[in-house]
Amino acid sequence: MSDQKLEAIAELLSKASNIAIMPHLNVDGDALGASLALALALNSHHCQVDVLIEEEVPATLDFLPGLDLIKNTPKDRYHVAVNIDNGDINRLGERLGIYQNAEIRLSLDHHATNKVEADISYVNTDASATGEIIFRLLTEYMGLPITKDIALCLYTAIITDTGGFRFSNTTPETMEIAGALMRTGIDFTYANMKVFDRISYAKLFLMKQTMNSLKLLFDGKLAVSYLRWGDLASFNAKLEDTEGLVNIGRNLEGVEVSLFLKEEKPGNFKGSLRSNDHVDVSKVAERFGGGGHKRAAGFSAEGDLEDIVRSLADVIKVSLKGEG
Amino acid sequence: MSDQKLEAIAELLSKASNIAIMPHLNVDGDALGASLALALALNSHHCQVDVLIEEEVPATLDFLPGLDLIKNTPKDRYHVAVNIDNGDINRLGERLGIYQNAEIRLSLDHHATNKVEADISYVNTDASATGEIIFRLLTEYMGLPITKDIALCLYTAIITDTGGFRFSNTTPETMEIAGALMRTGIDFTYANMKVFDRISYAKLFLMKQTMNSLKLLFDGKLAVSYLRWGDLASFNAKLEDTEGLVNIGRNLEGVEVSLFLKEEKPGNFKGSLRSNDHVDVSKVAERFGGGGHKRAAGFSAEGDLEDIVRSLADVIKVSLKGEG
Repeated sequence: MSDQKLEAIAELLSKASNIAIMPHLNVDGDALGASLALALALNSHHCQVDVLIEEEVPATLDFLPGLDLIKNTPKDRYHVAVNIDNGDINRLGERLGIYQNAEIRLSLDHHATNKVEADISYVNTDASATGEIIFRLLTEYMGLPITKDIALCLYTAIITDTGGFRFSNTTPETMEIAGALMRTGIDFTYANMKVFDRISYAKLFLMKQTMNSLKLLFDGKLAVSYLRWGDLASFNAKLEDTEGLVNIGRNLEGVEVSLFLKEEKPGNFKGSLRSNDHVDVSKVAERFGGGGHKRAAGFSAEGDLEDIVRSLADVIKVSLKGEG
Repeated sequence: MSDQKLEAIAELLSKASNIAIMPHLNVDGDALGASLALALALNSHHCQVDVLIEEEVPATLDFLPGLDLIKNTPKDRYHVAVNIDNGDINRLGERLGIYQNAEIRLSLDHHATNKVEADISYVNTDASATGEIIFRLLTEYMGLPITKDIALCLYTAIITDTGGFRFSNTTPETMEIAGALMRTGIDFTYANMKVFDRISYAKLFLMKQTMNSLKLLFDGKLAVSYLRWGDLASFNAKLEDTEGLVNIGRNLEGVEVSLFLKEEKPGNFKGSLRSNDHVDVSKVAERFGGGGHKRAAGFSAEGDLEDIVRSLADVIKVSLKGEG
């Protein structure tokens, strides 16, 4: 199916004299992979393409081809500026002026919340990753070859946003595109290792502390784990370092509900709840002023850790029986 | 490309009056998924299909459709017996007699080491999983529809043997087949969760002990971790429970070499070595009577844990310098 916006974007890009490509702040595998793929495809003697970012390239992405197209000294004014994988203009940070000052502003994204202004804004929420959109733009609308370097960037974009083809945003088309990218001979096992396997000191330490704290209640159906303020402070833990720790309990055999408590400040806890099959944890969270979904919910609590666990366990016990 | 053996197998299966399908002992996601998919496709009023296994269905696979086709009381003699995903006739266990007693014996597998005798034996080592072979047999050679139930079995077979499309045996065709299976509307996120996320008590405990033991040497380039005999014995640890524990050290940021020691009997250690980028750990292992590949090697050692670590560290130190 042909798309007029992508046609128009292809037309403008093919005539551009120079291009600035700008992914969102805190660049991830999709934002950077999609940006570098587009830059590698368009950079030529006739058209200089600069990729502009505001942070160091993350270690998980330092293997991507095209990193030499990242420029620290942008031009004053670009012919075309392209906003990539970014639904919020404020996430262009200090590059906002460069974007707004460009002769033509384009935007390519897959976020439903996108509200970025552009001369042409293409948003496709069916695409698992902006990398998928770039693949279609290059192959179907610009007739450009997918080199092995471009393929590695796009493959990395797609695995980042689909969790390695596991998240529900993965589609049959995603699999077909990944297959086409693999046909170029990319080292996809290496890309997966870089993106998914490496963990930080902080993450390892916090995983260990979470495992050491883990206790099972109610015949192993409830897993309770926690991180104390001291643990978090000693590693200057970032939000990403504690993400997913509630799943250690959830994934343990026989567990239905996992409760994870993070002491964000002394005596102030953020609680995460997950369930596997039948308990509606949003109802549990609501009893403590929080909320969420059936299988994932959260709440805040103040006081003594043991008291908080006891209160939660009392409510969860009823849920386990009621719906068991 | 047409394959005469698959044509002949399709012909025989379509005329069978009854069929026994037998995956290898210690059935895994590929063996069982491929077996159930074939059984679901062929079972009919005209042809009874029995899937024969010798163990409980693993908890990770208890969601597969077609489990009711698993029979505990086999017939004395089958018209057709099909050996599935099994390269060694001894891995049919107590079912060997049923296989050998069948009027026609067929074998479908993807292991290079396959040496199973059959009236027709089809081995395709390019297939990532036997599930891929069953997909081609059903669609290209038998013209049978891939129902949603069959698709879920085949998808599970493929993700099991490709590590979720990450292992190097994954091909562009694998991705295309997975895409076709997803088009039936299967809950692939659930299949991934079941196959990959659940961990046993023993595994969690051993992961925790491994993390607690982990020490870094040589500016964080060497990670050393271990499990003592007492840890392993207290959980009756199986081989699968300690698989991959060497990767905890390997995946840590900055680490080049990971050494993991498992005390299999008091004072008897099995050592695993992994490297990320440049150290050839097979050379290190060879110094201690072991061997392997550049990035993965192993050895055995007897004596005191600290002495063994010191000897290994001395050799690894040189490798880190020599090739760093």
